This record gives sequence, C-alpha cells and structure tokens, in this order.
Amino acid sequence: MYKILVTLPMRQHHKAEFEKAAVNCAVTYSAANVLTSELVKDADIIIGNIKPSLLAENKNLKWVQLSSAGSDVYAADGILDRSTILTNATGAYGSVISEHMLAVLLTLMKKIHLYQSNQAAHIWRSEGNAATVAGSKALIVGAGNIGGEFAKKLYALGCSVTGIRRHKVSSPEYIDGGMYLMEDMPSLLPSMDIVAASLPNTKDTYKVFDKDAFAQMKVGSYFINVGRGSAVDSDALAEALNSGHLRGAALDVTDPEPLPEDHPLWDAKNIIITPHISGMYNLPETLDRLVEIARYNLNAFLTGGEMKNVVDFETGYRAFKE
Amino acid sequence: MYKILVTLPMRQHHKAEFEKAAVNCAVTYSAANVLTSELVKDADIIIGNIKPSLLAENKNLKWVQLSSAGSDVYAADGILDRSTILTNATGAYGSVISEHMLAVLLTLMKKIHLYQSNQAAHIWRSEGNAATVAGSKALIVGAGNIGGEFAKKLYALGCSVTGIRRHKVSSPEYIDGGMYLMEDMPSLLPSMDIVAASLPNTKDTYKVFDKDAFAQMKVGSYFINVGRGSAVDSDALAEALNSGHLRGAALDVTDPEPLPEDHPLWDAKNIIITPHISGMYNLPETLDRLVEIARYNLNAFLTGGEMKNVVDFETGYRAFKE
Repeated sequence: MYKILVTLPMRQHHKAEFEKAAVNCAVTYSAANVLTSELVKDADIIIGNIKPSLLAENKNLKWVQLSSAGSDVYAADGILDRSTILTNATGAYGSVISEHMLAVLLTLMKKIHLYQSNQAAHIWRSEGNAATVAGSKALIVGAGNIGGEFAKKLYALGCSVTGIRRHKVSSPEYIDGGMYLMEDMPSLLPSMDIVAASLPNTKDTYKVFDKDAFAQMKVGSYFINVGRGSAVDSDALAEALNSGHLRGAALDVTDPEPLPEDHPLWDAKNIIITPHISGMYNLPETLDRLVEIARYNLNAFLTGGEMKNVVDFETGYRAFKE
Repeated sequence: MYKILVTLPMRQHHKAEFEKAAVNCAVTYSAANVLTSELVKDADIIIGNIKPSLLAENKNLKWVQLSSAGSDVYAADGILDRSTILTNATGAYGSVISEHMLAVLLTLMKKIHLYQSNQAAHIWRSEGNAATVAGSKALIVGAGNIGGEFAKKLYALGCSVTGIRRHKVSSPEYIDGGMYLMEDMPSLLPSMDIVAASLPNTKDTYKVFDKDAFAQMKVGSYFINVGRGSAVDSDALAEALNSGHLRGAALDVTDPEPLPEDHPLWDAKNIIITPHISGMYNLPETLDRLVEIARYNLNAFLTGGEMKNVVDFETGYRAFKE
C-alpha cells in the first residue's frame, strides 16, 4: 500500500477520478502552503510541487509528479534520491502559456505599452506604424508542447513558423518553415521577425541567447522568453533593446527570480516583464490536464506500465522517445 | 475625359496597375497634406480621404473613393453634392484592425497593463488569475469585414463567436454561435465574456452602448470598440469600468476625437485608449487592397458596371445587397 500526498488543488470530481486509479493506496490531500514536514516524510508518492527543501527531507520517495513543466529545481543535486521517479507536467500548459505569449507579442507589435504611457499623461498621439503577425516569420526555439501551441496560434494568424527542437522530428503543418536543431539557430536567426524561446533549464540551454545570438537577430525583431530565465544573458538582452537592435522583448521568466529591484532589465527599452505568471491554473482545462497526467501516471506506476514525462536527472530533459 | 486626383500614397507598381484602368483619364497624384484648393476644384474624381472642408469646395465631383471604411464625415450634410457617388474602403482593413483588437483584448485578459505599472515601479508581483480567449464566448456587434476578421481570429483561438449584423445573413463557420440582428442584442449580452463593436456612425448606431447595454453585460466581461466613438455613451462606460462591472475596455475610437485632455475616460479603471490608429497603412497588404478597390471601382465607373462599397447618404451605411 502506497501513501500518496496530493498538493495539487484538485476539485471534488478530480479527486473521484484520481482515486479510481489509486487502488490500495491511502490518499491525503493538503494545500502546498500548509504542508507539514511529517506529511512529506510519511509519503511514498507526492503529486504536486512543494518546496524543494521540504522534499529533500524524504529520501525514500518512490515517485514525485510535478505540477510544473519545468523540473530544474527538483532534478538538482541534493533534492531527490536518484532512485525516485520524477515526472513533470509537460502537456498541461501549452494552451494557457501560448495565449500569454501572443498577448505580450501583440502588445509590443501594436505599441500598446507606449500608448499606455501616453494615456497616463492623457496624450492622444500616434506612435507610428505597428508591426503585424500576419506576414511575419517566427522561430520557436523549443517547439515542444508550449512552443508548439504558440506556433499553432501564430500560424492561424498568418505567420510563417519555423521550429527548433532537441531531436530531429518531422514538422507538423503549422510549422511550415520546417523543424531544425539547436545547431541551426545561428543561420535561422537573421531572417526572423519573431524569436520565441520555451526551453528548460539544462546545461545545454544555459545562456544560448547571448550577445552573439542577439547580434544575429534581425534589426527590429521581437524576442519572447517563457521557458527559464537561465536561457538568456540579461546584460546582452538589455543592450540589444537599449540600442534599438531589437524592437521589443517580453520575459515571463528571469534569472534570478524574483528579478532584483535594482536590476537593469526593469528599465530596458520596450521590454515587458511579467513575474512568471503565464502558466497559472487560470484555465480550468489546465487543472483538468494536470489531474489527467497524474491519474495516467499513477495507473502506470501501479500496474508496471510506462509513465509519461519522466525527467532524466542527468540531462534535466524528459527522457526522449521518438 | 475625367480628371482624377489621387491622394492615396500609391507606390510605383500601384500606379501602373491603377492607370491601366484609367482609360482616357488624366491622373494627378498629390499627398493629402500638401493638396491645393485648385487641384481639388479641378477634379472630377478623387481617390483617397482629404479634408472634408476642402472637398466641400467642389460640388461638381462625380465620384469620391475613400481610403477609410468609415464615411460619416463625408456623407454628412453640406460636404458632397447628393449626385456625387461616394464609395468607402470596406474590405481593406479587416486584417490589420482585427489584429489590433486581439492585441488590446489579450492585454486586458492577461493584465499586461497592470504588470506594466508594476514594472515601472520594479515590482515583481502576481496580479492573480488571467482570463483566456480559449473557452470564452464573444459577441461581435457589426460582424462585417473588420468584425468578421476578428471573429475568425477568436474562433481560431478556441473562442465561441456570435455575430450581429444589420441584415439577416447566414453564419460563416467561424461565427459558430449564429448571426443575429441588432434587436437581439439585449438578450445576447448577458452570456458574453467579450463584446466587440465595429459599427459605422449612423443614426441607428448612436449610443447603442448606453447604461442599459453595459448593465446587461456579464460581470467581469470585456468591451472593445473600433468602429466609431459615437456608438458608446462615454459616461456609462466609465461607470461600468470604475464600478468593476466590466473587467476591462479598449477604445481605438472616442467621441469626440481627439479625446479632450480632461475627459474622465482617460483614467477609468482597466481601460486601454489608443488614438484611432488601429487601421493605419501598417500592412503593405492594406495599401494593396485599397488600390485594388479603387482600380475595380474606376473600371466599373468608366464602363457602366456596378461599383462596390457605395455609401447611401440617407442611412450612412453601404447600400445593402444580399
């Protein structure tokens, strides 16, 4: 009999669904913010993100199902025993985060941030021509679930979309510019109007958007980051914005988080910073998907089936399957 | 031989295309802002919007092709002789204006305007759950070219869309909630998360969004206006926003324009005001479409064919054809 601790804010119908899969298990529900050390130490399985330091107190955990797509702080040394299975929530956030990405891109393209400043001063003044998604070319760096959903939206709005993934995969129809590898990025950047990054924090992704990458980007292009802040060299980005090389950038993630009050990025030209909020449970569908991933994996765990979204502690990525 | 004055900023290839249709005509090009009274008085046909007072000096005009979708100031008494044909630019702006509409809607839904205020003060703080287009219900009041293009975008993003038009027409697939008439608006408003207006300024549309209409709207819904400011009672809108009944509103048009510096709308809660810029020539495609409408109509005018987008001076609408 496994003891399962659930911190995911399941609703009544979610619990009923989840418990059907929890054959011979004891399920305890607790909100993550009121969790006791005892509950964590007593659990065999934890469903939901809890404070990593709390997690580190239980080296006998069999499995941890995250409620986030990012797993870096949980896969880090000293948190989980390497025998613990770690699974993330890839697949739950594509819809909601990609809407946020579209929101910040359009805000920049239509200069809404400039009009907001004018409005505060009661000034009725055109800020000149806007850019358009229709007819633009976008590069999605990390075209997985989140990047892929953003690609679908851009494509539906008349944008041509190119993708980059870690492994060679075929292109879906909404990635009409083709699917490439990380090593192709320098040759792709110069022709793109929009570059969007949705990368996990791994050794391979550390500061891939550095001074060189921003220099390769087209003058007047836009940059968006929703993966992890570690993928971006903040100083290089601030410089690319303040010089006018980039026409705008939007970050929902920074390095570090929270962004320190005196950090120069806050005041960079044409930047929109949001405090890592693009993937909140603000879509009932998102919570439904999280519960479904947990239910699916619990069933697989108990019956010896194949679990999805298993994180490889070595690479920090999900174990790759074609 | 007709004398044609063109103020539309045609590029070389546009001129070549247009002049092919201008059989036996003399074509003069002049930017609207450097136009002389003599040029206007000498013309039989004018292609492009010029100052109405200047237009009023020539009562012998055969035809005026506007470069705007709105025609109210040109159809007004005292500007054109009633024998002059007036055609507007319906069809040219749908793509670009609907992108602007999506931009301001998403800005409000994702609270980007609040995050921008926080950013100015270097504050990293969540503003709580965002709303999503996916799964929402939208009503497009005036689902013509512009409203229809907005409907397509919303539908592609997973929103259910209902339309209102002046005449009974069948629903395209992206208006999955059906097409209704103005008289149905009160019964439709209470169930809508998003209400977008794209109406011309006519007797019938004056302040259709009044205190009653906003009261009928759902608590927490969003309102967008890109047609003419005259469709909205500004005081009623400000009240609906400041009381929190509406979660946000975006206006690209106001009454009057420019919005006076001391107008209360500037500081209404959760409002985004842009200075009638959503339809600028910021898409090369838009200018292409304007030239194509002018070319088509010139050919029809010269050959006795049927011109498109003819404005009815009585109603202020385009003459209706099923």
